[in-house]
Amino acid sequence: MPTYQAPLDDAQFLLNDVFHIDRYANLPGFADASPDVVSAVLAEAGKFCEHVLAPLNRTGDIEGCTRHADGSVTTPKGFKDAFRQVVEGGWIGISAPSEFGGQGLPMIMTQLVNEFLCSANMAFAMYPGLTQGAIAAILVHGSPEQKQQYLPKMVEGAWTGTMNLTEPHCGTDLGMIRTKAAKQPDGSYKITGTKIFISAGEHDLAHNIIHLVLARIEGAPEGTRGISLFIVPKVMVNADGSLGAKNAVACGSIEHKMGIHGNATCVMNYDGATGFLIGEENRGLPAMFVMMNEARMGVGVQGLALSEVAYQNAVAYAKERLQGRALSGAKEKSKPADPIIVHPDVRRTLMTIKAFNEAGRALVMWTALASDLHHHSPDEKTRQAADDHMGLLTPVIKGVLTDSGFANCVLAQQMFGGHGYIAEHGMEQFVRDARITMMYEGANGIQALDLVGRKLPKDGGRALQAFFAETQGFIKEQGADAAMKPYVEPLGKALGHLQAATMWFMQNALAKPDNAGAGSTDYMHMFGLCALGYMWAKIAAAAQTKLKAGVDARMSAKLVTGRFFMERILPETTAQLARIQAGAASTMELPAEMF
Amino acid sequence: MPTYQAPLDDAQFLLNDVFHIDRYANLPGFADASPDVVSAVLAEAGKFCEHVLAPLNRTGDIEGCTRHADGSVTTPKGFKDAFRQVVEGGWIGISAPSEFGGQGLPMIMTQLVNEFLCSANMAFAMYPGLTQGAIAAILVHGSPEQKQQYLPKMVEGAWTGTMNLTEPHCGTDLGMIRTKAAKQPDGSYKITGTKIFISAGEHDLAHNIIHLVLARIEGAPEGTRGISLFIVPKVMVNADGSLGAKNAVACGSIEHKMGIHGNATCVMNYDGATGFLIGEENRGLPAMFVMMNEARMGVGVQGLALSEVAYQNAVAYAKERLQGRALSGAKEKSKPADPIIVHPDVRRTLMTIKAFNEAGRALVMWTALASDLHHHSPDEKTRQAADDHMGLLTPVIKGVLTDSGFANCVLAQQMFGGHGYIAEHGMEQFVRDARITMMYEGANGIQALDLVGRKLPKDGGRALQAFFAETQGFIKEQGADAAMKPYVEPLGKALGHLQAATMWFMQNALAKPDNAGAGSTDYMHMFGLCALGYMWAKIAAAAQTKLKAGVDARMSAKLVTGRFFMERILPETTAQLARIQAGAASTMELPAEMF
Repeated sequence: MPTYQAPLDDAQFLLNDVFHIDRYANLPGFADASPDVVSAVLAEAGKFCEHVLAPLNRTGDIEGCTRHADGSVTTPKGFKDAFRQVVEGGWIGISAPSEFGGQGLPMIMTQLVNEFLCSANMAFAMYPGLTQGAIAAILVHGSPEQKQQYLPKMVEGAWTGTMNLTEPHCGTDLGMIRTKAAKQPDGSYKITGTKIFISAGEHDLAHNIIHLVLARIEGAPEGTRGISLFIVPKVMVNADGSLGAKNAVACGSIEHKMGIHGNATCVMNYDGATGFLIGEENRGLPAMFVMMNEARMGVGVQGLALSEVAYQNAVAYAKERLQGRALSGAKEKSKPADPIIVHPDVRRTLMTIKAFNEAGRALVMWTALASDLHHHSPDEKTRQAADDHMGLLTPVIKGVLTDSGFANCVLAQQMFGGHGYIAEHGMEQFVRDARITMMYEGANGIQALDLVGRKLPKDGGRALQAFFAETQGFIKEQGADAAMKPYVEPLGKALGHLQAATMWFMQNALAKPDNAGAGSTDYMHMFGLCALGYMWAKIAAAAQTKLKAGVDARMSAKLVTGRFFMERILPETTAQLARIQAGAASTMELPAEMF
Repeated sequence: MPTYQAPLDDAQFLLNDVFHIDRYANLPGFADASPDVVSAVLAEAGKFCEHVLAPLNRTGDIEGCTRHADGSVTTPKGFKDAFRQVVEGGWIGISAPSEFGGQGLPMIMTQLVNEFLCSANMAFAMYPGLTQGAIAAILVHGSPEQKQQYLPKMVEGAWTGTMNLTEPHCGTDLGMIRTKAAKQPDGSYKITGTKIFISAGEHDLAHNIIHLVLARIEGAPEGTRGISLFIVPKVMVNADGSLGAKNAVACGSIEHKMGIHGNATCVMNYDGATGFLIGEENRGLPAMFVMMNEARMGVGVQGLALSEVAYQNAVAYAKERLQGRALSGAKEKSKPADPIIVHPDVRRTLMTIKAFNEAGRALVMWTALASDLHHHSPDEKTRQAADDHMGLLTPVIKGVLTDSGFANCVLAQQMFGGHGYIAEHGMEQFVRDARITMMYEGANGIQALDLVGRKLPKDGGRALQAFFAETQGFIKEQGADAAMKPYVEPLGKALGHLQAATMWFMQNALAKPDNAGAGSTDYMHMFGLCALGYMWAKIAAAAQTKLKAGVDARMSAKLVTGRFFMERILPETTAQLARIQAGAASTMELPAEMF
């Protein structure tokens, strides 16, 4: 049975020593995030995740969700009580505005708590997680009345939220959506159609479910410019906020899937259900993107979270399992064999995961901080730069932290040998659960295209230039320090590869877009490695500073792990550049019938 | 529901045009392998796999195996009838000696047929596959009487075989085995102990199961030098070959595992079971290695096989699923969207798998041919060189084709977007089934250590030198041909990296073995890429020859796919070399408590 311990120390180190949240105390939210509050919130969240959610992870996987003949869905044993504790703890609304009942703390706190929740029980964490996404969309695009009507209950967790995009014939290509919206005399709409893959679409955890649904208003233009976003409550809400009649929306079935069995993935049938337009007509896609970007960050965090919990369990096993002797001579002679953590290939594996997790957490926090600055900074330039940062890094975090998160779960499972294949150890569940993160909220190939096709050229490449300016400024600033050379030199080299790849796209992809498409996934991963490398350089600088104050084994370990990243992981950019510069010719040449 | 089509054309091309099996017609086995026979055997095997085994793959996954209170195990519906057809078709004994009822055909045929079987239904294919391994061990180490007693029934498939190595506290480190063997006055032994992870340990497909069991004879030396190998039949065999009493061995439970649900993975309890020594006392490990090497090749084939079937289904989906438009402009304007195979990132993915599969199949056949030469060549030098080749390539085939096979199944699943996560499509089963291949028969980290620690230095590096001589000889021979430059030049560069890595180990790992351990997995994969690259160069040369005879779309496709391999996959050796040359320092530096 796997266990979990929230990485509180690492979170505090990143908050205080790497990102210096005390510097932002003048901003709304941060003032309330005093060291005491931060510490208490994280500790409380950690305790809940370790003691309540983690023990329900495997039982939830085994039991799964059950749909009954009347369309209702029962979640696994224990989920209902755990969700009650989510409501009591106010975990959904940590960063929601206080006017709607939220705690108004920075997003950086929400992302940390979400990591803990997903490590402990990803299938469960999706219920509050999707609610946060729906809250974000209503906050930005909802009318004042809609906000008053829905947000307090959602922030509290009395009601949950969903996002309804996918239909059987279209996922990525939302211009093909067929779900219809017919305008009614009272200004509401009748929504009719079928949506699939709706996570948390139906369950027994909350009194109501607020579905955000993409649909096409009768007579709207074809394609993506004719799609609108609607609020469709499971149960109608009366003017006084009480619940009224059941709406004409129902769960038709739940999917049999590889993992996240504790989350109900529903086929949702809308049969003339009453819906309310959110935002403007035919502007549903941009509105949904607010939610989707939030969700994409959240999915990146899921990848990180599963990598972390899988790592913790692999470490425990590697310290306990006795097998073979160290190549440099027996380490524990009194035992029949050494613990397998003495073996270089085992350590290489554990170091690989560790190096990703610690920098991945930093990358999420760096970007969450940008989200806070974007929302709260009084300075327009800062707000814009923060928005640029989020736009650029969101597909990278989604694509890279989930590809790596899954790969790391596989590596962690591998540490168990054949035992990793046996369900009781729980490692194979992490692998199965992590697999979905690469697919949903835009498959990772779509993230790569979003990065290369939209985010790079946007505003004349302003976001990318800012990224290069910041990272190269850091290298210049730190380059004089000999102790920082093992970090900034490899980082500089990798950034050079990233620049060369960017240049290659500029020169070769305008005339032949396939050249960008064929290199997009490599580019996304190269970007991810550079961003993670920058995080390691920042972490190393912070660790050096702390070490000047005296011996600190944790900080020394940071320096070693950072070096491992630079020596063993970052060199991949060389191969990525070669692949990108090979262009699209051999990729595109075969006629389809030769596959 | 996934489908499967045996790659008969590719098999024929490799047999005839790349490996020229007609050149070996003077050897036993090959004389019988006339083009007609080969063609008929492969076609028949293909038909059986496509029409009988493939349809049972998903149903077998859902139903799994059931252990009853009396310890008997029922396999999924349809397996029994399918196994009867395996017996009727003589599929187990294709390459077994005719004196024991086999067909005496070359191993290269067995490996092809095994690929088809595993593509169609890996969980099922393990029942005959393990029997082949047990046959191999008895053939090499059994007494003439043991051969007569067991082989005809096993070759026929009336009885199946297993291998029993792992115990709860030891898998890799077999020196720790505790299962005891007590010698009896009649020369037999009483075997007592518990073995775990015994694939096909108990089932309802055959009249008897011949367990090959590692155990320690009372008073034997400690460690690996005190381990012996025993035949322990499930049902005792009378002198006349008829079945007698049940032996004291029973299946205690079957494991709940991530995949291969159709194969019963058993805990086997030996409770004073009667066993017969095979080979010499305390020489059980070398005897078991015969079986294990056979099994490791077989597991490599499983990785390839799952990659192939996953690829076929991803291709079908990519041609059928309409989503988005080609970057270079709409391709199928009459349809609401283009099939996703127009997208560069989709093609990159499919080409990656295709390039691995076709070269992987060649690599297996090249090595299977070595097995045939080793067994049948009249020339001692040829036999030795063939043995060297097998020893060197077996860990590479096992480690690389399974790591890649699994990765390719993940890539193929990714082509389906969210649909890939849904069980009905069958893609997630390929991923779950493929996962075990990286773990069993020696986890891939062990394969890497076997390669670097044992196979490289063996006989003064003779096997490796022969590998370099052959590949570089080929490059030299083909280098003058401009049409071959796109293949042999990148191959030469990659081989240069492999030589540099080998040299680095020689200079840095003798004094510090951790330097080899920390680079072993990268080295194994680098070796794999070089070997696959050599296969592509050979395939390209054969394709060029065929193209001189006229237009041939399949051969043109080979040339493109080979170029893709050289441009897009082989450059990874650059990064691998950098990682290897980074050495073990940052890998080994952290104290265990800092993980």
